[in-house]
Amino acid sequence: MSGRVLVTGASGFVGRRALEPLLASGFEVHAAGRGTGAPADTPGDVTWHRADLLDAAARRALVEGVGASHLLHLAWYAEPGLFWAARENADWVAATIGLLDEFAQSGGTRATLAGTCAEYGWSAPQPLAEDSALEPATYYGACKDATRRVCEGLAQLAGLSLAWGRIFFLYGPREDERRLVASVARALAAGERAPTSKGLQRRDFLHVDDVAGAFAAIVRSDAGGPVNVASGEAVTVRAIAELLADAAGRPDLLDVGALPDRPGDPPEIVADVARLRDEVGFTPRIGLEQGLAQTVDWWRSQLR
Amino acid sequence: MSGRVLVTGASGFVGRRALEPLLASGFEVHAAGRGTGAPADTPGDVTWHRADLLDAAARRALVEGVGASHLLHLAWYAEPGLFWAARENADWVAATIGLLDEFAQSGGTRATLAGTCAEYGWSAPQPLAEDSALEPATYYGACKDATRRVCEGLAQLAGLSLAWGRIFFLYGPREDERRLVASVARALAAGERAPTSKGLQRRDFLHVDDVAGAFAAIVRSDAGGPVNVASGEAVTVRAIAELLADAAGRPDLLDVGALPDRPGDPPEIVADVARLRDEVGFTPRIGLEQGLAQTVDWWRSQLR
Repeated sequence: MSGRVLVTGASGFVGRRALEPLLASGFEVHAAGRGTGAPADTPGDVTWHRADLLDAAARRALVEGVGASHLLHLAWYAEPGLFWAARENADWVAATIGLLDEFAQSGGTRATLAGTCAEYGWSAPQPLAEDSALEPATYYGACKDATRRVCEGLAQLAGLSLAWGRIFFLYGPREDERRLVASVARALAAGERAPTSKGLQRRDFLHVDDVAGAFAAIVRSDAGGPVNVASGEAVTVRAIAELLADAAGRPDLLDVGALPDRPGDPPEIVADVARLRDEVGFTPRIGLEQGLAQTVDWWRSQLR
Repeated sequence: MSGRVLVTGASGFVGRRALEPLLASGFEVHAAGRGTGAPADTPGDVTWHRADLLDAAARRALVEGVGASHLLHLAWYAEPGLFWAARENADWVAATIGLLDEFAQSGGTRATLAGTCAEYGWSAPQPLAEDSALEPATYYGACKDATRRVCEGLAQLAGLSLAWGRIFFLYGPREDERRLVASVARALAAGERAPTSKGLQRRDFLHVDDVAGAFAAIVRSDAGGPVNVASGEAVTVRAIAELLADAAGRPDLLDVGALPDRPGDPPEIVADVARLRDEVGFTPRIGLEQGLAQTVDWWRSQLR
């Protein structure tokens, strides 16, 4: 695969892991993030660009300057807990539409954007396929859904090839510690008590390296429209916590049921991954047990 | 009704007609348009603001400067023929979301925005009610639909009251002469041959003064969500042309069937207007025969 790919959100949880597989696919990789420099683990072959995509002039300069054939747009407002209902989502609707338009005008040919399982109706029959009912229950989901609608139209007008990767649940090293798996893994690695809810809800979790690898595979494929980025397997949150505790060798620290269940939390959210597997040709590499153990190890390495 | 209303697109076809009914409702009216000054027929009591809403800084300054309690947002890209598939629609998605956010932050309490019947699926059963299936066939429709989805979420977060008036078909004096009714009326008033298609498609036409009056009524009501702005009556395009020819006294100039039908043109698009009538309390005042005759007269006055 030859071509030049521009990756946004490249210092984020998924973005920083997507650079390596894109390089391995043969792309010239340009990465953009808000920070002053590239994260320390950024491969040396990557060209780093500092840019605030919410600044329209800076965004335009970035897109025109790079002149990429491919776009992988992962940047969005992602503050844990807050992003579900934050007004910042609206800024990212506008920035994403603007970015795609500028990318098309600069001669780009294929764009891959990050969507979310929160675009689906939570109570739709499981597993959720790409043509399941769209009925976002949150403002974040509504903004992603609306963005996709506009971007698909824009791509059609501009003759762009466009894919929309709907991320389900993810975990792995470097996850923000305010998020579920990271908070439990960090506590266990630190030898602290790890309280969880009863955790009977079933979710589709994928290791961040597989999420990033799936996006790299989508970028180099010609799959169009929405593609679920997930494992296709539902496990209870309780099982995740228990696997983490086993990996840490401290099942005694787990306090299941100590936290309240979230009211209205849907019992199951799991993806149909046929498109990802059959059309994109991607299969996850990291099993849950292995990935969770690696996550605990990473937290241990941070706490030393 | 007391309060201060900011009207965008105030020099446009609908906007300039909405100022008078808003003043009559007791509002302090601030009008914004791109032009250097207010159109000549702008009522003297209106405060005029020149602003390009696509310029984020200018837009913010306008909203903060006016400090309106109510917003009537009519501005959008509307170039006849081109607007259906123009990339400029994306700019207006972003500008509209930004405007609403800024309006909420500046202390606004009620926003009324302009939507379109093109948000509905064209092949949905008629008449189209506000809860009919949304399946825009055009980029314009997709952009309006996406904008509404984001704006409804934003309004809920911000505690704003929000209405979304879906405009069907409209006509009247000062319409762009590239549009259907205006082109036929102008030709007839000028004594020129007026070619039309067979015109068997049935549409829901409302006089621009009634469209503007309906929006003023929505602004002062507390109706939430989408409201069809239409007559509720379907007439064939051929009947419209014949009424215009009768009004002009020149049925001989009408050449029905001289233009090709547009492929895929839906046979009927008509609104269910129960919400507008019963919840908003608005009933159109100008019958089709009277309104079309007045339109021909206006074109005559322009050609003298």
